[in-house]
Amino acid sequence: MYGTHELKKAFLEPAIKGDMVACVGVSEVEAGSDVASTKTTAVRNGDDFVINGHKMWITNGAQADWICLFCNTEQDKPKHLNKSLILVPMKTKGVTVAKKILKLGNRSSDTAQIFFEDVRVPQKHLIGEPGMGFVYQMEQFQEERLWSAASALVAMDRIIKETAKYCSERTAFGSPVINNQIIHFTLAELQTEVEALRALVYRSVYNYLQGENVTLFASMCKLKAGRLSRVVADKCLQFWGGMGFTEEVLVSRFFRDTRVLSIAGGTDEIMLQIISKYMGILPGKSKKRPASSTVSH
Amino acid sequence: MYGTHELKKAFLEPAIKGDMVACVGVSEVEAGSDVASTKTTAVRNGDDFVINGHKMWITNGAQADWICLFCNTEQDKPKHLNKSLILVPMKTKGVTVAKKILKLGNRSSDTAQIFFEDVRVPQKHLIGEPGMGFVYQMEQFQEERLWSAASALVAMDRIIKETAKYCSERTAFGSPVINNQIIHFTLAELQTEVEALRALVYRSVYNYLQGENVTLFASMCKLKAGRLSRVVADKCLQFWGGMGFTEEVLVSRFFRDTRVLSIAGGTDEIMLQIISKYMGILPGKSKKRPASSTVSH
Amino acid sequence: MYGTHELKKAFLEPAIKGDMVACVGVSEVEAGSDVASTKTTAVRNGDDFVINGHKMWITNGAQADWICLFCNTEQDKPKHLNKSLILVPMKTKGVTVAKKILKLGNRSSDTAQIFFEDVRVPQKHLIGEPGMGFVYQMEQFQEERLWSAASALVAMDRIIKETAKYCSERTAFGSPVINNQIIHFTLAELQTEVEALRALVYRSVYNYLQGENVTLFASMCKLKAGRLSRVVADKCLQFWGGMGFTEEVLVSRFFRDTRVLSIAGGTDEIMLQIISKYMGILPGKSKKRPASSTVSH
Amino acid sequence: MYGTHELKKAFLEPAIKGDMVACVGVSEVEAGSDVASTKTTAVRNGDDFVINGHKMWITNGAQADWICLFCNTEQDKPKHLNKSLILVPMKTKGVTVAKKILKLGNRSSDTAQIFFEDVRVPQKHLIGEPGMGFVYQMEQFQEERLWSAASALVAMDRIIKETAKYCSERTAFGSPVINNQIIHFTLAELQTEVEALRALVYRSVYNYLQGENVTLFASMCKLKAGRLSRVVADKCLQFWGGMGFTEEVLVSRFFRDTRVLSIAGGTDEIMLQIISKYMGILPGKSKKRPASSTVSH
Ligand SMILES: Cc1cc2nc3c(=O)[nH]c(=O)nc-3n(C[C@H](O)[C@H](O)[C@H](O)COP(=O)(O)OP(=O)(O)OC[C@H]3O[C@@H](n4cnc5c(N)ncnc54)[C@H](O)[C@@H]3O)c2cc1C
Ligand SMILES: Cc1cc2nc3c(=O)[nH]c(=O)nc-3n(C[C@H](O)[C@H](O)[C@H](O)COP(=O)(O)OP(=O)(O)OC[C@H]3O[C@@H](n4cnc5c(N)ncnc54)[C@H](O)[C@@H]3O)c2cc1C
Ligand SMILES: Cc1cc2nc3c(=O)[nH]c(=O)nc-3n(C[C@H](O)[C@H](O)[C@H](O)COP(=O)(O)OP(=O)(O)OC[C@H]3O[C@@H](n4cnc5c(N)ncnc54)[C@H](O)[C@@H]3O)c2cc1C
Ligand SMILES: Cc1cc2nc3c(=O)[nH]c(=O)nc-3n(C[C@H](O)[C@H](O)[C@H](O)COP(=O)(O)OP(=O)(O)OC[C@H]3O[C@@H](n4cnc5c(N)ncnc54)[C@H](O)[C@@H]3O)c2cc1C
Repeated sequence: MYGTHELKKAFLEPAIKGDMVACVGVSEVEAGSDVASTKTTAVRNGDDFVINGHKMWITNGAQADWICLFCNTEQDKPKHLNKSLILVPMKTKGVTVAKKILKLGNRSSDTAQIFFEDVRVPQKHLIGEPGMGFVYQMEQFQEERLWSAASALVAMDRIIKETAKYCSERTAFGSPVINNQIIHFTLAELQTEVEALRALVYRSVYNYLQGENVTLFASMCKLKAGRLSRVVADKCLQFWGGMGFTEEVLVSRFFRDTRVLSIAGGTDEIMLQIISKYMGILPGKSKKRPASSTVSH
Repeated sequence: MYGTHELKKAFLEPAIKGDMVACVGVSEVEAGSDVASTKTTAVRNGDDFVINGHKMWITNGAQADWICLFCNTEQDKPKHLNKSLILVPMKTKGVTVAKKILKLGNRSSDTAQIFFEDVRVPQKHLIGEPGMGFVYQMEQFQEERLWSAASALVAMDRIIKETAKYCSERTAFGSPVINNQIIHFTLAELQTEVEALRALVYRSVYNYLQGENVTLFASMCKLKAGRLSRVVADKCLQFWGGMGFTEEVLVSRFFRDTRVLSIAGGTDEIMLQIISKYMGILPGKSKKRPASSTVSH
Repeated sequence: MYGTHELKKAFLEPAIKGDMVACVGVSEVEAGSDVASTKTTAVRNGDDFVINGHKMWITNGAQADWICLFCNTEQDKPKHLNKSLILVPMKTKGVTVAKKILKLGNRSSDTAQIFFEDVRVPQKHLIGEPGMGFVYQMEQFQEERLWSAASALVAMDRIIKETAKYCSERTAFGSPVINNQIIHFTLAELQTEVEALRALVYRSVYNYLQGENVTLFASMCKLKAGRLSRVVADKCLQFWGGMGFTEEVLVSRFFRDTRVLSIAGGTDEIMLQIISKYMGILPGKSKKRPASSTVSH
Repeated sequence: MYGTHELKKAFLEPAIKGDMVACVGVSEVEAGSDVASTKTTAVRNGDDFVINGHKMWITNGAQADWICLFCNTEQDKPKHLNKSLILVPMKTKGVTVAKKILKLGNRSSDTAQIFFEDVRVPQKHLIGEPGMGFVYQMEQFQEERLWSAASALVAMDRIIKETAKYCSERTAFGSPVINNQIIHFTLAELQTEVEALRALVYRSVYNYLQGENVTLFASMCKLKAGRLSRVVADKCLQFWGGMGFTEEVLVSRFFRDTRVLSIAGGTDEIMLQIISKYMGILPGKSKKRPASSTVSH
């Protein structure tokens, strides 16, 4: 979006083509939800940036060719204005992929911790304007959140359909278990929620394509996608009986994988914060905070 | 839709203009969810129909000029093929508005029980084809359900907004109660669900205008509208503290009124049945039913 | 508990016998949850207290013989140490019952606003120690909360039973509606939660009788009683179909009445605060509060 | 309980001492919830039983010394009266442990499928009366269900405590995340439900020790334990952020392990069936079933 023509040619194009793998480096051990307080720095030195710090939870970090690194380049500015995005090839000297994190789910994609020690990249690897990293990153999150909601839909459709199929074939007490009202009504209710989410995603994408700021809508999509996936996974798994608790069926994998949706890319609680902010009901700095601590019951 | 030109001119036009009040007569004391088993009959006699029976729960029944009556005209056919819709002016001899029902909410609109004793109307008051009443009524329900979901949206928006306003003004423990995370997060979550429902209504209306059968979507809209209204009413009322429990605030009226949404126009359970049917998971006649009774634990 | 022998003889005894009606005066228009910030004062003058201020939401206020008044007697002390309880006969000069509040439910008991203008009562009407009002009131709340949870149980049992009975008699689609799994399973689940609450109340009362501080348990009972009553009311009402929405059945009255449980006697949110405090997870004054406002997504 | 003195001496005693491992063999591939329709048979032959069939989902099946086998011994009787319990040493000829099932959680205990081919055991290995297997098994389930609810309590306490601790240490936006009301209120609500379940378990165990039939209560305990564990696991995991999604923390293991509680030992739906039966609202054989299939909306 904001990078120079050369950067796009050399890195973005191959990534889109599938010839290169890219990864997004924002979170750190000490700062996940609180993006602005990340600590990795890039200091100008000659024509280069010299980068020090680390990144945590990096999806595809272990196999990536380059990382889009969120780091502090303007040390004298306040924390929402001192970050930039820098493109760092992973084979640059001083970049170490420290470990692959063992996860509850999503085991087919790797998640890594990455260290940066006196890593040098040319200053022209800066993406867009210096100090605009926070803004760009928030824009990037919009798309990421819409995309993750959209992918959740596909998975939920499939799980509901497979569960309905299994329950139509499985019998107990002399008839298919799907005939139990609790089962078909539950699936009907879940599908209703899935259609509502799908409609919300359509509406958001439509607005996005019209050029609107869809931060509010993208956050709502992400929130509902995370919440609903958990319910779909949990309720559908139940209807597989003992089979649902084995590693042999898709539903149990979905149950593990899907749990990440409410966490990565911004937790549900951060989505609620953003939505509150857009509704004008998030307490501001100037306002007095509730002193719930003074209760003495 | 299906009536003759004269019927439309004489009755539908004034009703739309607001010069006449119409009402819909389907439910009976013994048959609400189970529409097909209603018992009111209209027997052909000369050029007339002679109508006997009663209707229950009729919205606007006490002030209506005419009723669109769902009744049995083809006594020899099976119950899904023997019903028709007949337009009956309320001042016809033999029509008695028996009583106005005292309700939990929606007190501004009346709900009546209506008796029909040897009521005569010309056969040309039949709407559309004889025996098609069930089909027409189900079509009518589509629109009614979309419409009721759409109106629920307006009410919910208003209640959330008023609650946010009240909570911004009301203080406790030295700051506005809205500053409590449980309050602003809850409102943000409710608004998210409202937007999802709105998107679903848009999507359904769009499809409807394209000429599609939206029975499935209309039922989903109605279901979610009923469910969500109850939650919005209940949760918002809470944040008004003692004031929420008085008759002086809109939210307590909303709490009472809104409860009907999950009942009238087809209950939530009937919506789930329709959705299950469209998903192909409603047990059919031919299939064995679960004999849950045989469990002996 | 803490009053003098004479006070008990003259006021408490007749109240327990049913010869006198008592009421509890804590809340004010500007202070409900935040009990400590109530403003009504009682200033010593000769042998008397001179009382000024008002009370809001007073159950039985319009018919009471005396009020147990929570008010500020030690003007120079901090707000958790300056309150006392004073017994004020309602026919004392200067006491005015201003208005009866129209309520959503519980209409058989009155709720009043009461004004105090230069009301004089002898200083010996002080209950217990001066400045201990806050502590005594919190103790009183323990019992009130246990009691209100216990009464909720009785009501819930009855509603579930009546709903089961109605659904066994009401038929649709050729069989009693109770035969629908969604209905009998829902009632079974509700009864399970009622039994869990009953067990919790037993456990709390038992501990209370052993002389333990049951503030934590009483708050849990009150919280769960409020939450569960709302669910029982809402879900059972649904199974009465159209009848549930009329004023003719107990369930719709229960639906209105029961809503107060999560508000009066301390709201659900205040219960959660108390429970958090006992669990050691309520943020204290000294701790930095979360500055959720600084998020800039 | 019902076995002969010799059987107890030879098998039960060592099992209690920990010198032998026992397992319970009820479920089969085709019959889990519907226990009565299991097919494994034991036919009398000389002084022996000759056993054929298989069992599925057997906890500890791979390491057990003996199995308490639920099988059909009275082939001519109806299915609730033809089962017995037989003690089968696992090293008997013809017993094959076919495979260990890969599971979502509880990986430290094995779960096996076991085949029986012309397995001979002396008839004195019968436990109690012939044909009483179903009754005994239902009694055994009572204890198993109480026990599983009780163990769930221990796990939930620990998870809530660890989560509170982690959230007190973890900071975001300049203060411990526990200070967010959504977090401490959620933990307070969960602990409330845990205490309600604990009280219900106490009440049930007390009644059990008094010699009462606690099938109803044990089923309620099991149901609530299953439901609540899932909520505790899911909600607590959320508050660990990215860490919750790793295999390094207890909460993610709990999230996987705990899912079995609503399935093994009788699913939630079977518990609801039993509770409904005890409440007198489970549709009986003689009653007409709802013909939900006839809906034609
Ligand atoms: C599988 C996986 C893949 C990931 N991939 C990437 C990646 O490719 N690139 C990348 O940069 N990051 C990635 N992440 C990191 C992810 O974005 C963070 O884990 C997430 O933002 C949460 O941060 P945290 O783990 O530090 O949790 P914390 O910020 O420590 O949060 C702990 C808990 O506190 C809550 N909380 C925090 N603040 C508030 C508040 N104000 N109000 C209420 N609750 C609050 C949170 O919601 C959470 O429940 C990934 C994470 C996972 C698990
Ligand atoms: C305020 C109000 C206005 C109304 N206005 C009109 C009107 O203008 N015109 C009109 O014709 N009607 C009107 N109605 C009637 C309304 O459509 C019916 O009340 C509704 O369809 C339910 O029917 P019932 O009351 O007979 O409930 P029942 O059919 O007796 O249902 C009782 C319960 O059983 C459940 N149930 C039934 N079958 C099943 C099943 N197969 N599976 C699971 N659960 C099931 C229902 O969902 C419900 O919870 C109105 C009702 C109200 C309350
Ligand atoms: C029918 C009825 C009978 C009553 N009878 C009596 C009586 O006999 N005597 C008497 O003294 N009082 C009585 N009350 C008053 C009752 O105790 C108060 O209404 C109640 O304590 C709530 O106070 P409030 O109405 O001022 O609500 P507020 O304190 O204004 O609360 C508004 C909302 O903010 C929430 N809130 C406040 N602080 C926090 C926080 N820190 N965190 C999260 N949320 C918060 C509340 O939970 C509530 O949802 C009665 C009330 C009713 C409705
Ligand atoms: C880890 C694990 C350990 C186990 N250990 C043992 C053991 O040691 N010994 C042993 O004998 N068994 C054991 N089991 C088996 C367990 O008891 C069964 O899995 C369980 O009873 C469910 O049976 P099923 O898997 O055949 O599910 P099914 O009976 O096929 O059920 C499928 C779905 O249909 C639902 N359903 C069925 N009937 C109805 C109805 N009437 N109404 C509504 N819904 C219904 C069920 O609730 C479930 O959701 C174990 C299972 C697991 C997963």
